[in-house]
Amino acid sequence: MGKIVRVDMTAKKVIVEEVPEKYQLLGGRALTSQIVHDEVPPTCHPLGPYNKLVIAPGLLSGTPAPSSGRLSVGGKSPLTGGIKEANAGGISSQELANLGIKAIVVEGRPREEGWYLLWLSPEGAELLPADDLAGKGTYEVTKICRQRFGDKVGVITIGPAGEMMLAAAGVTNNDPEGNSSRYAGRGGLGAVMGSKRLKAIVVDSPSIFDAPLKDPDRFKAAARRFADILHQHPVTGQGLPAYGTNVLMNIINEAGTLPTRNFRFGRFDKAAEVSGEKLAEVAVARGGLATHACHPGCVMRCSNVYPLPDGKVCAPIEYETAWAFGPNLEIGSLDIIGELNYLCNDLGLDTIETGVTLGVLMEAGVIPFGDGEAAIRLLKEVYQGTPMGRIVSSGAAAAGRIFGVTRVPAVKGQGLPAYDPRACKGNGVTYATSPMGADHTAGYAVTANILKVGGYVDPLKPEGQVDLSRNLQIATAFIDSTGLCLFVAFAVLDNPEGLPTILEMINAQYGTSLTAEDAMEMGKNILRAEREFNLRAGFTRADDRLPEFFTYEPLPPHNTVFDVPGEELDQVFNF
Amino acid sequence: MGKIVRVDMTAKKVIVEEVPEKYQLLGGRALTSQIVHDEVPPTCHPLGPYNKLVIAPGLLSGTPAPSSGRLSVGGKSPLTGGIKEANAGGISSQELANLGIKAIVVEGRPREEGWYLLWLSPEGAELLPADDLAGKGTYEVTKICRQRFGDKVGVITIGPAGEMMLAAAGVTNNDPEGNSSRYAGRGGLGAVMGSKRLKAIVVDSPSIFDAPLKDPDRFKAAARRFADILHQHPVTGQGLPAYGTNVLMNIINEAGTLPTRNFRFGRFDKAAEVSGEKLAEVAVARGGLATHACHPGCVMRCSNVYPLPDGKVCAPIEYETAWAFGPNLEIGSLDIIGELNYLCNDLGLDTIETGVTLGVLMEAGVIPFGDGEAAIRLLKEVYQGTPMGRIVSSGAAAAGRIFGVTRVPAVKGQGLPAYDPRACKGNGVTYATSPMGADHTAGYAVTANILKVGGYVDPLKPEGQVDLSRNLQIATAFIDSTGLCLFVAFAVLDNPEGLPTILEMINAQYGTSLTAEDAMEMGKNILRAEREFNLRAGFTRADDRLPEFFTYEPLPPHNTVFDVPGEELDQVFNF
Repeated sequence: MGKIVRVDMTAKKVIVEEVPEKYQLLGGRALTSQIVHDEVPPTCHPLGPYNKLVIAPGLLSGTPAPSSGRLSVGGKSPLTGGIKEANAGGISSQELANLGIKAIVVEGRPREEGWYLLWLSPEGAELLPADDLAGKGTYEVTKICRQRFGDKVGVITIGPAGEMMLAAAGVTNNDPEGNSSRYAGRGGLGAVMGSKRLKAIVVDSPSIFDAPLKDPDRFKAAARRFADILHQHPVTGQGLPAYGTNVLMNIINEAGTLPTRNFRFGRFDKAAEVSGEKLAEVAVARGGLATHACHPGCVMRCSNVYPLPDGKVCAPIEYETAWAFGPNLEIGSLDIIGELNYLCNDLGLDTIETGVTLGVLMEAGVIPFGDGEAAIRLLKEVYQGTPMGRIVSSGAAAAGRIFGVTRVPAVKGQGLPAYDPRACKGNGVTYATSPMGADHTAGYAVTANILKVGGYVDPLKPEGQVDLSRNLQIATAFIDSTGLCLFVAFAVLDNPEGLPTILEMINAQYGTSLTAEDAMEMGKNILRAEREFNLRAGFTRADDRLPEFFTYEPLPPHNTVFDVPGEELDQVFNF
Repeated sequence: MGKIVRVDMTAKKVIVEEVPEKYQLLGGRALTSQIVHDEVPPTCHPLGPYNKLVIAPGLLSGTPAPSSGRLSVGGKSPLTGGIKEANAGGISSQELANLGIKAIVVEGRPREEGWYLLWLSPEGAELLPADDLAGKGTYEVTKICRQRFGDKVGVITIGPAGEMMLAAAGVTNNDPEGNSSRYAGRGGLGAVMGSKRLKAIVVDSPSIFDAPLKDPDRFKAAARRFADILHQHPVTGQGLPAYGTNVLMNIINEAGTLPTRNFRFGRFDKAAEVSGEKLAEVAVARGGLATHACHPGCVMRCSNVYPLPDGKVCAPIEYETAWAFGPNLEIGSLDIIGELNYLCNDLGLDTIETGVTLGVLMEAGVIPFGDGEAAIRLLKEVYQGTPMGRIVSSGAAAAGRIFGVTRVPAVKGQGLPAYDPRACKGNGVTYATSPMGADHTAGYAVTANILKVGGYVDPLKPEGQVDLSRNLQIATAFIDSTGLCLFVAFAVLDNPEGLPTILEMINAQYGTSLTAEDAMEMGKNILRAEREFNLRAGFTRADDRLPEFFTYEPLPPHNTVFDVPGEELDQVFNF
């Protein structure tokens, strides 16, 4: 059932393989992490010939399961030096699943110059020369590919940053309208793709909802039930559909855990100016959209379409991006944020890492905090590959080293996202311990810390955060394997029917009889494989810590420090 | 006996402490590494308030023991993230010992702007404002300090690179003529000093040979015997005194292990042009010196004074520097090498790390191989603190990341020195496993691999290299603690009277009865403390490996790869 497309970039050969039995019931992150674990030498150079780039749709991708279009991208990260999985929406996951492709494995490295494109269609898989696409931004590459291969194709691509093998480069794919803005952004996997000299993968499937189902009727009933569960929850049924993820801006600001001025303060006086509410108002006034689906079949529709003053369109501006370029840099303008976001999308850069890096550069005094035009100027240098442009795209840790900055908010070399660990300590535990490096999506404790979803754990106290993060990390690893958007977790955490309904869909699709226990075991197995890879790559408990300034610099307004003890952090993976 | 000068840069307070019993018989590297081990949290930020800079003369420094003027500088390295000791000649070690100072410990970090100078004299220790020295090169700082405090003082200082906290910054001190060119260069300890905002330490002792001796007659007899031993060996008595360390250029080239063009080839067709023989010829013709002592009482006098065409004087050009800027960059001009060396001395940069970084930048195509003028231009950018200047000074690993280069010759983040590990495999073992990162001085297997000193181990075969490196690392750690120049090892390895005579001097000085076994135990204890620090800092066996390209890219002319198995490397510290 299904196949693996193996692309040898040294020999320029594509082989289509049967899926081994052991991978049959893995998808998304479970599959990328397991293949990386099984095939990549943990100590290899992330940009060398021994690393592999693995791309996989989730277990439910390509079916009518609501919001199941996530695409996982994995490999050894040039940013963290550890295993990496980053996932994104967009249409490629559904297209891949409908072509029967469980994974693409890109390996080796060309010895000579030249760029390539992998074309996947019902006729097979073919590696084509793509020198004409080299140097181009992702918007243009996607446009050219849609002209060349048809406007229904999914285009998985990298921008100039990935070609230059810069450690903040992501892998993007497009939404239904052709916007190359759905990023598997974190961890520099775009640089890995660049190191293989693979500029783009074009996925051309005639269908997107027709992945094989063992029991279609049972599946459809479960999918309908799952859509209802999502509709009924206030976050997935109301908050996200109304204002998208940026509905969080005012909430996190109010909670006093909105990292401002490179993690100096927990509130930003211009938060409302860059909030989801404001975004919706401006977007609609300019003929954009306050709500939008990043892939067909999403019921949450948390994306948006934000027209920029110059006529360009940024779709979407996510909360974490609005934070990275907004409060984090003391920039209170959605238009500046949108411009920086658009540039990152086109350059092929992770917006979070780039925003954190710009914050470190502002901390160093390279440009002033609040100076949006200067930030845009720095970012545009990436197109030219200037030394500064390269620094901006190499991650916060590298920028901190180059500019002698000690206040670098990064764990395992990856920049911290939009929730300060001193006033949302559950997220702090996740940042410190996730095999992915600092990553809010790896165990989103904002749920119980701030939103009171799935219970409540006081965000300012160390107690209970380790258990919270552990449970979330396990559940997340499972969700990341299904192809479901992680946001379904809001509803699943509060509705006892949530998880059984997901399992009902999987069981109906594959003819299996997975239980909730199996699901949690799958989550644990993923984390075990990822931890084992990192262990062999040289990670220790010393890597499972936050930067020291979070332990001695209190965060206003709550004036708390991060005080979850190291010995407790070491208990996160005690299963 | 002796005292520790503890400088609290947060409070701007100097405290002079008695030396605890446990440190009484430690000196140099033994003392810096033990204090760092005992007092510095291994996971702290190297440029943050919790790191400490420790400076210590050796056990024999300040006595008439020949060639005993090495000064050790230690701390947590911003380059490697591990423990670091770097040592240098120059006059400060002898001055410190004659003031009865066993160690200077610089701790804390000022919260406000401003630079400081520590003045040590028979009257005591005083912290003085030094804003007028900020931004100045080391030559000028040393000149000003000698004008201000007298021309006999030792000036321990950092250049602009250290002030900017760049990871390739070293700590320098001056030779008897006032040249600030004796570098504790490796590992970025200059950046640690910069992070403390300590621009310089002025050591003003009325004597340099009068450190207390329990039994002066016995000591003098042993010292005379030791001088004889050094005079009698061909390397310490003839090779080094005639042509300095750069006598190695032709030898290492002939051996086919001279890393050329960023470690692509093992021979350089212009090696003779940049050799010690050529250097002596040019230096003497221009009124310089082919031979020179970096501190009073050195009998090997392996330093030199090389006048540059524009009238500046570079003293000395060492072999590793000539290699780093010569064969490594395919530059065949001693004048270019001298100019780059002079710039590094003035900027306060480690020449090896800077040369390896320039090699990586040439590999990236930033400037062409062989283009000396372009290299000088890049290096001069450090004065301005441009992005490129900062990259040049941040180490090869950071430059590799910024420019997407996979052929980065570095271990634990520190660039490899002047002996290719594929054709001098004993050095490869040392590079891989030393707690210091890639460091030829930590276990100089060139002795038995190439020079046939202390036996012979075939440099091209993996057999015997682990034992060779282990023994040398232990012996080196001991030597590094005595204040003796490591070059005495050439004679000591071949003369059974060597080690007993060193111990006789120590025993006569301290009234002890140390045996050869005690000396080796001291060496082992140092390595144990350093390894334990690194372990707690997060190092694993994955860090004890060479970059992967050395394992699959054969080095001409011998066409060997580095093939000492990982499991054997893990046995280096099995004592």
